[in-house]
Amino acid sequence: MELEFFKKFSINLDLALEAREIVQGKTGQEIPGVRVDRETYSHATVTIVVIQEKSAEAVMGRPVGTYITIEAPAIGGRDPQAHHQIGLVVAEMLGRLLNLPEKAHILIVGLGNWNATPDALGPKVVSQTMVTRHIFNYAPQELKAGMRPVSALAPGVLGITGIETAEIIKGVVDRIKPDVVIAIDSLAARNVARIGTTIQISDTGISPGSGVGNQRMGINRETLGVPVIAIGVPTVVHGAVIAQDTIDQFMEQLKNNPTLYKIYSMLNPNVSRDVVQKVLEPFGGRLTVTPKEIDDLVRRAAKVVAGGITKALHPNLTAEDYEYYVQ
Amino acid sequence: MELEFFKKFSINLDLALEAREIVQGKTGQEIPGVRVDRETYSHATVTIVVIQEKSAEAVMGRPVGTYITIEAPAIGGRDPQAHHQIGLVVAEMLGRLLNLPEKAHILIVGLGNWNATPDALGPKVVSQTMVTRHIFNYAPQELKAGMRPVSALAPGVLGITGIETAEIIKGVVDRIKPDVVIAIDSLAARNVARIGTTIQISDTGISPGSGVGNQRMGINRETLGVPVIAIGVPTVVHGAVIAQDTIDQFMEQLKNNPTLYKIYSMLNPNVSRDVVQKVLEPFGGRLTVTPKEIDDLVRRAAKVVAGGITKALHPNLTAEDYEYYVQ
Amino acid sequence: MELEFFKKFSINLDLALEAREIVQGKTGQEIPGVRVDRETYSHATVTIVVIQEKSAEAVMGRPVGTYITIEAPAIGGRDPQAHHQIGLVVAEMLGRLLNLPEKAHILIVGLGNWNATPDALGPKVVSQTMVTRHIFNYAPQELKAGMRPVSALAPGVLGITGIETAEIIKGVVDRIKPDVVIAIDSLAARNVARIGTTIQISDTGISPGSGVGNQRMGINRETLGVPVIAIGVPTVVHGAVIAQDTIDQFMEQLKNNPTLYKIYSMLNPNVSRDVVQKVLEPFGGRLTVTPKEIDDLVRRAAKVVAGGITKALHPNLTAEDYEYYVQ
Amino acid sequence: MELEFFKKFSINLDLALEAREIVQGKTGQEIPGVRVDRETYSHATVTIVVIQEKSAEAVMGRPVGTYITIEAPAIGGRDPQAHHQIGLVVAEMLGRLLNLPEKAHILIVGLGNWNATPDALGPKVVSQTMVTRHIFNYAPQELKAGMRPVSALAPGVLGITGIETAEIIKGVVDRIKPDVVIAIDSLAARNVARIGTTIQISDTGISPGSGVGNQRMGINRETLGVPVIAIGVPTVVHGAVIAQDTIDQFMEQLKNNPTLYKIYSMLNPNVSRDVVQKVLEPFGGRLTVTPKEIDDLVRRAAKVVAGGITKALHPNLTAEDYEYYVQ
Repeated sequence: MELEFFKKFSINLDLALEAREIVQGKTGQEIPGVRVDRETYSHATVTIVVIQEKSAEAVMGRPVGTYITIEAPAIGGRDPQAHHQIGLVVAEMLGRLLNLPEKAHILIVGLGNWNATPDALGPKVVSQTMVTRHIFNYAPQELKAGMRPVSALAPGVLGITGIETAEIIKGVVDRIKPDVVIAIDSLAARNVARIGTTIQISDTGISPGSGVGNQRMGINRETLGVPVIAIGVPTVVHGAVIAQDTIDQFMEQLKNNPTLYKIYSMLNPNVSRDVVQKVLEPFGGRLTVTPKEIDDLVRRAAKVVAGGITKALHPNLTAEDYEYYVQ
Repeated sequence: MELEFFKKFSINLDLALEAREIVQGKTGQEIPGVRVDRETYSHATVTIVVIQEKSAEAVMGRPVGTYITIEAPAIGGRDPQAHHQIGLVVAEMLGRLLNLPEKAHILIVGLGNWNATPDALGPKVVSQTMVTRHIFNYAPQELKAGMRPVSALAPGVLGITGIETAEIIKGVVDRIKPDVVIAIDSLAARNVARIGTTIQISDTGISPGSGVGNQRMGINRETLGVPVIAIGVPTVVHGAVIAQDTIDQFMEQLKNNPTLYKIYSMLNPNVSRDVVQKVLEPFGGRLTVTPKEIDDLVRRAAKVVAGGITKALHPNLTAEDYEYYVQ
Repeated sequence: MELEFFKKFSINLDLALEAREIVQGKTGQEIPGVRVDRETYSHATVTIVVIQEKSAEAVMGRPVGTYITIEAPAIGGRDPQAHHQIGLVVAEMLGRLLNLPEKAHILIVGLGNWNATPDALGPKVVSQTMVTRHIFNYAPQELKAGMRPVSALAPGVLGITGIETAEIIKGVVDRIKPDVVIAIDSLAARNVARIGTTIQISDTGISPGSGVGNQRMGINRETLGVPVIAIGVPTVVHGAVIAQDTIDQFMEQLKNNPTLYKIYSMLNPNVSRDVVQKVLEPFGGRLTVTPKEIDDLVRRAAKVVAGGITKALHPNLTAEDYEYYVQ
Repeated sequence: MELEFFKKFSINLDLALEAREIVQGKTGQEIPGVRVDRETYSHATVTIVVIQEKSAEAVMGRPVGTYITIEAPAIGGRDPQAHHQIGLVVAEMLGRLLNLPEKAHILIVGLGNWNATPDALGPKVVSQTMVTRHIFNYAPQELKAGMRPVSALAPGVLGITGIETAEIIKGVVDRIKPDVVIAIDSLAARNVARIGTTIQISDTGISPGSGVGNQRMGINRETLGVPVIAIGVPTVVHGAVIAQDTIDQFMEQLKNNPTLYKIYSMLNPNVSRDVVQKVLEPFGGRLTVTPKEIDDLVRRAAKVVAGGITKALHPNLTAEDYEYYVQ
């Protein structure tokens, strides 16, 4: 699948990992100005894509910065030990991007719509987040040493509030002046297998037009005036992608047969795009789908992300402390 | 798409309308032993498929009986007037299959899992159903003339109860002896556009293996001992279907070009099946998806179905009465 | 019951109507600087308490302003016609306090905690509010003539966000600059019969320490810089009040008997306070209760308030329009 | 407070512990035919009331059997360790009454209304219960050794289903033939401090008229044909009780003063009943209240009860196993 395909169908490539793959295409060569590292953990594979140079921004479709992708299929399973381990990987990666001073005040923002299952990840993470800022202000002795002031917000979506989400956040940030914002959002992936099982953490915030709810205004350092760490989990894929995957597979089959291969080479390169368009026609050209197990997938991913955030912000906290504060 | 395709991927054709189309294939000829009628309403097209003869059961994959399909895209929209009109069509069609004596006792059963959005239609309908049986028993004077005793049950699913749903219903039916059961279920369609916008009503109950939750034991006259009217609304499609639709579209394109058409006819008929299988491989060969708007789609369809049921069971009820009893 | 009693037990008299009664005590004389009017509707009695002079502020425990109380027991019943009628009274009274210019932008704020039933009124009203501001900005032609831009916010409570609710609202108000804020809150009443059936509308906003969630910082013109209309519905009573009511009734009984009356007059006036304190001792001196039907009471009151607000802001809207935008 | 008081106001004494206290009254003597034992645990006090003789049934208002009351204020707190410890006490007490054969099949029934917070305890316990019967039937190798087949049901309430709850349960029990039923219900206490912090376990099932939802038909060995263990947690108190407590406290005060004491003895014993009746008059003589923190109280109690049941039924299960199966 080529980059143009995503433009044609106005599909945002929310995962930098996927954008890179598409851009690389069949060449397999690293994109100039982009550096990639890989780390392996017992239940997770971590890919760190660093867009180092301005020149790579246009081709990657996103700003200079670090994009960490944690691929962990076990999030979608039932093993609580695996969930815990993956939470620790989230904490470790988050820690690398945060570089928090000891007393930093952090604002967690859960983007999305609590009334739409595939868009409810952000609010769900907020409801499991350990909030401490008010305890710091009113009864600091109730807190363990080494904890940081944390606040949280689930601002809702434009259709519920009538207000741009970024406007609400900007208003609150200007007021309470956190040192850093962590924004959680639902993403679109190009691979259904990533739904609920991949976590992207980046230090560039959230760009306009990305995410399931399609923010119209960015939520990043430029708009908010403080660093924004974005945590995203894919919860949907575009129907166009499933259709295109099918055509790609079909083409692969043709190639295996010498006679058919001739035909294949005769095919107008636009034919596949026309086909996808025909398939999506009944949906006004746009169809976004999610697996029928989405309720469970979102619930588990939210648990892992919330646990990872808490561990990153309060490294000395035990599992029992977490249960104590979060229940 | 051919019938074999659905067998190959173990996809149940929950809608008789779709089963008929597939069976007819390109012939367009009516299936022997099957009669089809069509009616048109302002916001709905109604297709009545009657399987009249035993001989047609195998080919249609379902028992002799009447299968009414109401196609009403406006269910997915916001127009409350259209919803009301479609509810009246549901009531009319339900009335034809019910043939209720004046004092018949009706048990409404909402199948499915309230914790999984695409499977929550049944419980949602139950929660909006007007229940009157207890008022009949304890304070009959509170009821309007012409009302019937109605009870309702949301039995849950196997994973929540550990009990076959049909067993729970059978136990309750044996106990309270309703004259008829109306069972509401979520279905799988082969066309994404039907999700949340098509309602199937049949007098054959629910067959084993059908529906989103895949009942293992039938819920029908044989198992329950009383007539069972099934009301189903598609809430999911199989990924295999999207893939196959794409290939079918692709083939159409090939046919338009005389040179390519030759090649097309050389293609092994199995190639498309292999392709679909490849696409679904990462999901163990099975992937069921639903649109990201599924919460709204289920909510609106439940409202229309519940309204239609109430109007069918209590024809003299006004809109205000309904609001009074259901709120 | 005397004013001192409420001070002693730190009970806020959230309803001006009740504060006035308590202050008047047995005298029955109007409080200087306070004017009271009454209006009667088919399902509602309206009392308008106007605190006209600064001098009356201290004795009434609230600022100069207008406090409209709608007493409508039918809110707690099931009659949809009555609910509709009461909604119109809410709209009428709100309209008198709002004095809205034609194009005014209104921000609705639903105070309270969606996870605590007796404190969930505000968020419930927000979820049923017709939000239009974004339609004005992006697709104004979709709106009927005569509609106003409305936005809405459910900021959560301190324990969930770690942020003073007033801080969140102030941040958003500074950003989107509404012409007026309407803040909805759950209140404490001194009379259980008022729970879910009385609505107070005032033009003075919300004072610190009032409401079920006990805001620490006021939400009013002083803090927000724009007029704030407060709409409150009692959802709890203090246990001390039930205890004191009992003692008052008991005293009444004593008075009827001449012999007992002597004793009554010998009683130390503090005895009743000591008794109430003893009753509340196991609860650290504070016990706040709500009827077991609170879920229904809050649901119905939210429906009436949301309907009233919408009618007040968009007077030309029909019932169907409302259903269209709100569903 | 005397037994007659509860009859007068039709208040069911759901806790045997409280019934015994009331019956004993000021005498402090044990009731003939009743045996009482006490055990103390780190976070719980356990009182075991055994009604041994038929003759004691009438005076105690309940059948011969064992009634175990666990008083554990820490359930209402946030300490997860304490919750775990109390869960173990529940498991221990439940184990004594169950006497389960190794392969016994247990049906858990969560009584009550999921839409009414104070009546939602039963359904909440069911949703956290580890259900295994279907795994036994379809994939037994997935289970750990020593586990038992468990199924669960949340039958709803009369107002939602139109069917007596006991009828639904009877139907299912006749069908799936469990060896024992464990029924969870919300209760009324006479002491507000017991709400959400006291657990009663008895081997006599549930009597008609008891519990928050007031079952009309018993749920016990007589009606179901198998042993029924009832687990109840108080979630409401009657307003009459708060009023009467106040009067009792008042009387205590009078007694301290020799002059007043004379008068006190002159008081018509009916005076207090008249007073309570006056206080409750605006509520048709009945008012049932619950603390405003009821959402949290029910949530925590459900967690402790569900954990205790699971530990009792599957003694070899670890905390991680539980998380694995229940999540």
